[in-house]
This record gives sequence, structure tokens and C-alpha cells, in this order.
Amino acid sequence: MTEKSCGPVARTVLQQCLQARLQVKPADEHSEAQFVQIDRGMVIYICFFKGATDDILPKMVSTLLNLRLCESGSGKVVSVTELPGSLLIVPQATLGGKPKGRAMQYHNNISKEDGLRLYSTFVSLCEKELAAAASAGGGAQVAVKHGTYGNRQVLKLDTNGPYTQLMEF
Amino acid sequence: MTEKSCGPVARTVLQQCLQARLQVKPADEHSEAQFVQIDRGMVIYICFFKGATDDILPKMVSTLLNLRLCESGSGKVVSVTELPGSLLIVPQATLGGKPKGRAMQYHNNISKEDGLRLYSTFVSLCEKELAAAASAGGGAQVAVKHGTYGNRQVLKLDTNGPYTQLMEF
Repeated sequence: MTEKSCGPVARTVLQQCLQARLQVKPADEHSEAQFVQIDRGMVIYICFFKGATDDILPKMVSTLLNLRLCESGSGKVVSVTELPGSLLIVPQATLGGKPKGRAMQYHNNISKEDGLRLYSTFVSLCEKELAAAASAGGGAQVAVKHGTYGNRQVLKLDTNGPYTQLMEF
Repeated sequence: MTEKSCGPVARTVLQQCLQARLQVKPADEHSEAQFVQIDRGMVIYICFFKGATDDILPKMVSTLLNLRLCESGSGKVVSVTELPGSLLIVPQATLGGKPKGRAMQYHNNISKEDGLRLYSTFVSLCEKELAAAASAGGGAQVAVKHGTYGNRQVLKLDTNGPYTQLMEF
């Protein structure tokens, strides 16, 4: 019980990219697969746990978008909003896995409905925060792209060093 | 003090790949950049913390290589040795970051010398374990490739879903 109430309610893994491309709709008999793509920026893999609520989202977004995690052209470490860079948000339920024997279990992951709701709000808040920063910074061409919740996240990543970070909330 | 003695001594992030390519030597005036590459398999991003010793390495390797994290051609979830798949090991000191204000700090990361030694042994143990499994499985063509400790890890990743996992030891 103690572990649950003290543990994080959201886990993110962050990677820097030069370009990242993510499938948002697989091919079917009627149409080809659809993709979204960003250039220079940050990939946010995200997973919510049981107990996560909307309350944590503003702080999460503010932290992730303002932490100095990105290397600027001059080698200075700046935030993704200062870079300015784009965001690719990838829902990643596997981040909630805990090993039991040789298998992974996901008992602590949030329900699909609640997860989708939190994920959608998280994406919206990122869009707002990045747009506000870009507008304040002179209207840089940055974008927030995101994967389809619950889908397979077919991803292609090109980096100049991913500088992988873990951030829990 | 309590936190330190209870916390993990190594953090890994795992991603599945169809292909991954990593720079192991940057270009200089005499030669072009050098890269290693794997096809189907798993990328292991790894960071050691203060207090990590050689004792933990056999268990780490055995766990990471035998956990069922990979999707086989038939859709079954199997370990990377059962797949059989290759390994790309990427030293990733950023995984030890903790935010202080807007900056990341790395006070809990192991010293460079100890980190390099543990990393080298970790790579060797992975090579042995994967070779043993491949030989038992009929000599499948799998490989262990790895980044140069302390360098920038220029990485290109192609996935059919990274299925990102966090494993701490």
C-alpha cells in the first residue's frame, strides 16, 4: 500500500531528435499508412499509472517543456521551448511494465479510458505551451505531433545523440 | 541517506528495433566517422549510479536478455535471446539526471572510471550470454554492438514499435 501511494503516477522517457517519424494510422485495404513527423526537437514517451489525475498535467507539461534538456546550435543546453524545437508525443504503455519472472506485467497502468483522457489533455497542454513560447519567441516554426493512443507506435528516429532522460511525476 | 542506500544502482531503458545504427567514432581530419549497426533486436541504454559494483552485472544481463520483451514474427512475446535478436548497448549518462530547478544534475552518477569498467564488463557478459544462446539455438546470426563510453551517441533507430521499457537494478 505504501509503495502505491508514494510511487509516481506518470512516467516519461525523453529523447532528443533531429527528425522523428511516427505512424498514426496503419495501412488498410482502403488507404496507405499515415505518419506524422517532426524535425529538430524532443520525443516524449508517456505512460500514466493508476491514481493519475488531470491535476498533475499542468506541472508535467511545464516541467518537461522548460527543463534544460536540449543542446542548442551553439552547444548551450536549453529547454525545448527555447531551442525552439518541436515535440513528438508517443503513448507508451510498456513504460509501466514490472517484471514477474520472465514476463512483464502492467497491473499499475491506468485504465484505457482514463489514460486516453489524460493523454489527450497532455497533448493539448503541450500544444498550448509550445505555441505560447513560439509566439513569444518570434513565431518559430515548431509543432506538436503525437501518436494514436492504444496503437502500435511505428517510430523512426534520427538523432545527434538521444540524451535519453527519465522523468517521473 | 536512506534514499541513497535503497535506490537503484543501475538504470536501463530498452527499445525494440528493426535496425539501429550508432556512431562509435566521430569523423576527424584523417578519417570518416565509424558506425556499428544491428538489425532486428534490442537497444539497451545504460547508466550506472554510485554504489554499483560488478556483483550486479550477471543478474542484470541475465534479466535483460531473458525477459520477454520482444515480439516474434508470429506475434508471440519472447526474450531477445529467443527471438533471436541482436543487441545494441548505448552508454547513456543522461539517464541519471535529476532536475534541480530547470537544470539537470548528475550527482548520483558513478565516476567515469568505474562506469567505464562496469560498462565494459556488462558488454562482455552480454556477448557471452547471447553467443551461448545463439549457439544453443542453432547458431543464429546475432551480434552485440555497443557505443564508445563517454562519447556522443549519434543514433539512428528504425522500429516497428519501440515498446520502451524501464528496468532498474
